[in-house]
Order: sequence, then C-alpha cells, then structure tokens
Amino acid sequence: MKHLLTTRDLDREAAVRILDVAEEMAATADREVKKLPALRGKTVVNLFFEDSTRTRLSFESAAKRLSADVITFSAKGSSVSKGESLKDTAQTLVAMGADAIVVRHPASGAAHRLAHAGWIDASIVNAGDGTHEHPTQALLDAFTLRRRIHGADARGRALDGTRVVIVGDILHSRVARSNVWLLATLGAEVHLVAPRTLQPAGIDEWPVTVHALLDDALATEPHAVMMLRIQRERMVDAYFPSEREYGRMWGLTAERFAALPADTMVMHPGPMNRGLEIASVAADSTRSTVLEQVTNGVSIRMAVLYLLVAGVEEERA
Amino acid sequence: MKHLLTTRDLDREAAVRILDVAEEMAATADREVKKLPALRGKTVVNLFFEDSTRTRLSFESAAKRLSADVITFSAKGSSVSKGESLKDTAQTLVAMGADAIVVRHPASGAAHRLAHAGWIDASIVNAGDGTHEHPTQALLDAFTLRRRIHGADARGRALDGTRVVIVGDILHSRVARSNVWLLATLGAEVHLVAPRTLQPAGIDEWPVTVHALLDDALATEPHAVMMLRIQRERMVDAYFPSEREYGRMWGLTAERFAALPADTMVMHPGPMNRGLEIASVAADSTRSTVLEQVTNGVSIRMAVLYLLVAGVEEERA
Amino acid sequence: MKHLLTTRDLDREAAVRILDVAEEMAATADREVKKLPALRGKTVVNLFFEDSTRTRLSFESAAKRLSADVITFSAKGSSVSKGESLKDTAQTLVAMGADAIVVRHPASGAAHRLAHAGWIDASIVNAGDGTHEHPTQALLDAFTLRRRIHGADARGRALDGTRVVIVGDILHSRVARSNVWLLATLGAEVHLVAPRTLQPAGIDEWPVTVHALLDDALATEPHAVMMLRIQRERMVDAYFPSEREYGRMWGLTAERFAALPADTMVMHPGPMNRGLEIASVAADSTRSTVLEQVTNGVSIRMAVLYLLVAGVEEERA
Repeated sequence: MKHLLTTRDLDREAAVRILDVAEEMAATADREVKKLPALRGKTVVNLFFEDSTRTRLSFESAAKRLSADVITFSAKGSSVSKGESLKDTAQTLVAMGADAIVVRHPASGAAHRLAHAGWIDASIVNAGDGTHEHPTQALLDAFTLRRRIHGADARGRALDGTRVVIVGDILHSRVARSNVWLLATLGAEVHLVAPRTLQPAGIDEWPVTVHALLDDALATEPHAVMMLRIQRERMVDAYFPSEREYGRMWGLTAERFAALPADTMVMHPGPMNRGLEIASVAADSTRSTVLEQVTNGVSIRMAVLYLLVAGVEEERA
Repeated sequence: MKHLLTTRDLDREAAVRILDVAEEMAATADREVKKLPALRGKTVVNLFFEDSTRTRLSFESAAKRLSADVITFSAKGSSVSKGESLKDTAQTLVAMGADAIVVRHPASGAAHRLAHAGWIDASIVNAGDGTHEHPTQALLDAFTLRRRIHGADARGRALDGTRVVIVGDILHSRVARSNVWLLATLGAEVHLVAPRTLQPAGIDEWPVTVHALLDDALATEPHAVMMLRIQRERMVDAYFPSEREYGRMWGLTAERFAALPADTMVMHPGPMNRGLEIASVAADSTRSTVLEQVTNGVSIRMAVLYLLVAGVEEERA
Repeated sequence: MKHLLTTRDLDREAAVRILDVAEEMAATADREVKKLPALRGKTVVNLFFEDSTRTRLSFESAAKRLSADVITFSAKGSSVSKGESLKDTAQTLVAMGADAIVVRHPASGAAHRLAHAGWIDASIVNAGDGTHEHPTQALLDAFTLRRRIHGADARGRALDGTRVVIVGDILHSRVARSNVWLLATLGAEVHLVAPRTLQPAGIDEWPVTVHALLDDALATEPHAVMMLRIQRERMVDAYFPSEREYGRMWGLTAERFAALPADTMVMHPGPMNRGLEIASVAADSTRSTVLEQVTNGVSIRMAVLYLLVAGVEEERA
C-alpha cells in the first residue's frame, strides 16, 4: 500500500489488515510501551489547508509514537496563500525530505491529485478532502465497532452482520461517505438517516438503506448509532426552521437514547454539539464510544503510517 | 502530588521539595546534561486559550529536556472556537494519550475545574487562569530568591525573614496572588504596593502589609522588589492621567533604583515595559534577576512535570 | 565561526568549508542515515518576525536531523507585538536555553544587531533581514551550482569561471545581494538583470556586470540563470504597465528557455510565480534545479548549524 486516499478501493483483506496492525499498536500502548522505533529518521508532514486541531494532533501523536519527525505546514499565512500551487508546495515538502504527507484540503479530490499527478513520490494520507472522504476516520470507527463487538482479540475478523445507523448531514459528510464504503466492504449493514435536503444525489445507488426519519432507522435495533456533527450554517441552507426542530427530528435525544436496545453503541466523530445532534446523557453514557474513537484514532493512524512508510521500505528491501 | 493548581494549598514541605527538585534539574543543566530520560514516552499537552509565548515555550523546553513528547493545542481556530466545551476538549486530549495538561485560560478557576470535575485522569498544571493564580511563576520567583540569598546548595531551606515588595496592578495579577500565598508559606515578609484603584477587595485579609506609596514600601529595605507588568488598557480603567504619572508614582525609576540598598534584587516576570514600570538601568543591572527568572522557570517546570507525571508512576508502582 | 549574518565577510576558505560540510551531510542522507546525534541536547530557536514557511521548515528539518530540539517563536500574537523589545525577546530565549537563534526579520540589520549588541551569547543565523541578506540561500545556491558542475565529489573546489545570470527585482532582493558577495568570493562571474527602477543605488560598485535587458545577459551563455521571485505589489511601485509586460521583458519565457545553451541550469529560490517570471516548461525541465535547491537547503542549514553550535563546543574543549 503506497497511499490511503479513500476507503472505496480498499478490499476486505487490506482493510482487515489495517485493523489488525492497529490492534498491535494499541497493544503496545496498553503495555505502557508508548514509543516504537519503527519510523525513526522518517519525516511525516501534516499539510493542512483547513483547520482541524483534532485530526492534526491525532496524526502528530501517532507519528511521534512511531519516533518519526513531524513537521506541520499550516497553509494559512504561508506561500500557498501567496499563490503557490499545490504542486510546488508538495514538491518542496518532498525535496525537504518528507516521507509521508498527511493532507487536509477543502477541495474534494485534492489528496488523489497529490498522489497521482506524478508530481511527487511520497506516501499520501487523505485526512479529509472537501465532502469526499476521510478514510482514517472510517477505519477508526470500524476498529471501534470491532473491538466493542468482538473484543481486542478479534484479529482477522470483519463486521459481517453488524447493523450501523448513520444520522445527519450525509450530503456534506466525508465521514459518512468513507464509512459507507468501508462498512459495506467489511460486511456490515448500513442505514443512513437524513432530511431530504441533506441527502446527496445518487444516494440510491449506495450500498445502504436510506431513511428520512430517525425513528424508522432505530427500529432496526442497530448495534451502533453514529451521529454526525451538524454545521449550524448548513442547517440554514437546508431550510430548517430552528435548531430545536432539527434536534427533535434527527437528534439522539434523551428519549430516543433511553429507547435504544441496551447494548447499542453511540458513536460520534467529534466535536459534538451537545443538545443539538446528541443529548449529553447519550454522549456521556458507558455506551458512548466517543473517547474510545479518539484513542483508537491514534492506533489506526499509527497503523496507516507504519504500513505506508515502513511497508514501502520493506518492499524495496 | 497529582496537580499543581494554586500555591494556596501547597504546604511548606511540598513547596520546598519542588524547589529542591528544581535545584537538581538546574544542576544537570550546569553539567551540560541537557536531556534527561525521565518522561520518555510521556505526552505533555500545552492547552492555551490565551496567547502566552513565554510561558508556553518555557513549559515546552522543560518537557523536551525531560524527553517527553510535547503537543501544543492553541485554542484559536480550533474546535473550541466552534463551541466545543472545555470538558470535551480535555477528554479528547486525554483519549489521545496526554499524561499532563498545562492549561492557560482567561477564566479564573478553569484549571481547578479541569482537575476536579471528574472529567479526566491526567495531571493538570495551571499556567495562569484569569486573575486567579500562576503557581509556577511564584515557584520560580521563590527559587530565584532562595538561590540569590542562600546559594545553589540551599536544599531544604525556605525564605524565613526575607522581605519582598511586590508593586503594581495587584488587582488583576495572578502572579501577585500566587506569590503572596507561596511566600507567606515559606516564611517571607510580603509588602504589596498598588494604587487604591488597583487593590483587590479583601486585600486586608491577605498575609501581607499593604502600602499605597512605593517609597513607603522601599523604606523597609527589602531583599527584593518585584515589579509587575502594567497593562496599558487597565491603567485607563483605573483612572490614570498618563503613563508618565504612573511611572512617577509606582515605577522603579532610576532614582528609586539608586536609592535601594546595595544588595536588593530587582525582579520582574516579563515582558517588561521599560520606562514605564521599570527603568532600563534597573532592568539591566547585575541586581536584576529578570533573566535568571526565565532560566529558573525551565528548572521549576521540569521539577513540576517530573513530580506530577513520573511521581504518579512511582506511587502506582 | 560564531554567527552567520552575511556572505560579505565570508572568506573563500570558510565558504568552501561550509559547502564541504554540507556535502558530508548530504552523503549521510543518501546513505539513509537521516538522523545524526551531533546536536543532541542543543536547542535551536526559530525566531520569525515575518512569515516564511519554507525557510522555517528547512531550518526545522535541518535541526531535527541533527537531533536538536527545535522551538519556534512566531512573533505574531506574542509579547513582541505587545511592545517587548528585540533585546528582551532574545535574552529571554537564551535564558530558556537557546544555543542558536535563527532569525527572520523585516528590518535590514536585525540579525547583525542581535549578534553584536552584546545582549546575548548564542549563535545567530540570519534567515533573511529586510532587503539586506539571506546567506543560507546563497550558500545553498552555490552548493547546487558546484554539485551540478563538478559532481558530489568536488570537495575543496570553488566556482571559478562559472557564469551566473541573476534576473529580477534586485532592488529589494536579499537573495540577490547574498549571492553576489558569495559568488564573487568563490570566483564566479555574476551578471545582474533588472529594470532600471529595480536596480539599487550603488550597484555600479558591486563585483558584477549589470544589464537592463535579459536577452543581453543570456547572450553570455551562462552556466546558470537564476530567476528571482517578483512581488506583484512591487511591480506596481516600479511603474509596470502589467504582469504580461514584465514577463515579456524580464521573464524566462518558453522561447528564451528554448534558446538557452543545452546545459544551462535554471534556478529559482521559490516560491515561483509560474507564467510570470518563469514559464512552467522551464520550471519543470530537467535543467531546473528548483527542487535540488530545496533539498540542498537542508544540507546547507545542517552544515551551518553544526559548524556554529557544535563547532563552538569544540573550540571550548
């Protein structure tokens, strides 16, 4: 594996392999071995054209635990804003010694372009491109599901038969898209819930069941409910009368949470709008995996960086 | 010791212990051993909701010399500004693997809340919360005083009988508050000088002598005069006619500096307003400890991080 | 060597020594030894009063490969913007343990002042001061020229007889100035090309040949053409009718590039304005050294930091 750009072309074997390596990474952390020498002397660049403190810190933590040097290139105030092209920026970073570039960009397809335009030779990790994909988020979600359902000793297993409901602004969500492809590949049964105005064109061809009403989807007694972050400014675009109205229709309220099966997990990629898409009682319950997702995010990103950067080395050797 | 939130509840033994460990840290630096393995594999997060380059760099230097990984989370432009709660931010950082969180926040009590709300398990270091406290600043000031008065080989000693005059905007100064509690605990005699409009309510119950005029306080022939930074915008609030007027009344002018006893130290937490609260001849004299305070700040912060993070480990083992 | 402030007072022996040490650094990178222990325990501070992501990252990479701790002090939003003096800032950084300060400043002479005002004892590297100098850029350019012309095994050699044409806004270019002094010292023949309004006063006394027309300079059949970045706002000041007009007169267009001798190198310090001062066909050709310059920049900065910081140690010992 040279790049991680999308979950769409990840086959089942490759996806399970990433989850398994992440399990190894998590196991070293559990044994208080926080620092591994695997990427010593390697340089990982965080190339962020959008602010995302969480994702950036997660990749930074992952790279540092693997002993890589981490360099953060925030595109604000840089030569990029002076009109330098993405190509020149990327080539410059590689010329400085970047072995992997973790890229977050507002334009869908930016990571793909970096990887395949023939400009550079480094490994590219897509850390979110427009409304397109955010593959490490989907991988950490799958890892969280597998760990909760099958335990830590689930190496080799996928998610066959697992029912997952994803709720919210599917139209603009790269998290939803990456999850849909990956969960389908891993054998899960995916239900999407969104107001009509926040359902993307072509959703009928996705490997999912679509619901307009949250309560219909929850009636399937899912193993997990994943609430997406709603952006207030997009609610306006989608003609919502009010936040209260949105919460009443598509939020995981205290009432809906109480009515869920006793072992249904509550997932959220964070940061949460408490009281809007998710009630605090759900966010803070023992069935919430919000913080596990963050912890697992570091393990997944360690696995991805390891497989891309050290993996390439192995192939050469 | 799990957290460092205030100097108010630090007993004499604990305070002297921190100064003694800082002395060990300073000694390793003097022997050109700049890097200690004590916190290898640990992650220290700088969580800064206010800009403070000096304090942040000092903690960063301290953590790196102890071989910790340092992650800086500047709250500007982060999900915090998108409305994420302090609780969610802190829990996220811990889920990513933070062992200690150094927090600077504009609200008095923020550090205390982080430590005691039951949200997280990491060690919290208060790096300044509103007008409340800045305990590592007070510790480095005490360390600087002890070293100048008793030498580097003063382990176990406190500051009994040391006369310290603190001058300026006591009302808004967390540095003053932390110093008052710590110096009193260590046996020092503290004199505060401030215009009436910059004296806090309740100052009469503090373990100090309060003066309205600087010259009255200097007549006590103090071992040290600590000048606080005056914020220009607060001078306006306090009804000052002009900067010149403030300097004339409460500044350490060249004339006042010349009239001090020959061995009185001049202290300032920095950054200085030269010509306003302190004359350059005082700031640059050999009796000024301004730069020693900065150097000692790294030793103190090494000691605090070591005691909190490695100390907790020892207790577990 | 204690500081690197200018190439003007660098003698031939010292300059060649830096290129030779950079060659050693490059050789270690070629052998996949990316991490050297030379500056372990040392602290390098990047003190940037102007944004310059490229230069900052290059120094950061160089310092990290030498195992130094790197601390970045961006003057925006810091106490500097609250009116703290350059002196106090520098003294604070040294008091925190800085062994070397890499400084970028909008005022010509700032680095010199830091080094020679008697304020501090650390090594100073000028990373660009106003329109004055940018010595590491000139050194990496000379290194790139020497490697292309004489190969990697050129230790001890200078650039005698090498013809270099530098084109663009000479008036405001610190890159041009540093290159002029260094190339002359190394025996190269330097040709400068600039519109009259972008030629500095006193240029007649520089050790160069000045041309107003680019085509006149290219007729000398140079070994290298170095295109400077043109700042759009300065073109306005210089009374240019349009960007197109500038490109036609002083740009390395596709036509001019095609007419160059077959082995003439094309250099640019980056970031490039493609289509303005340089055509993409020139920027992307195998004769372009733009990316080599970036890679070589890390080797040169490793050499400089090593010679300044570890070199000083050796002298003491």
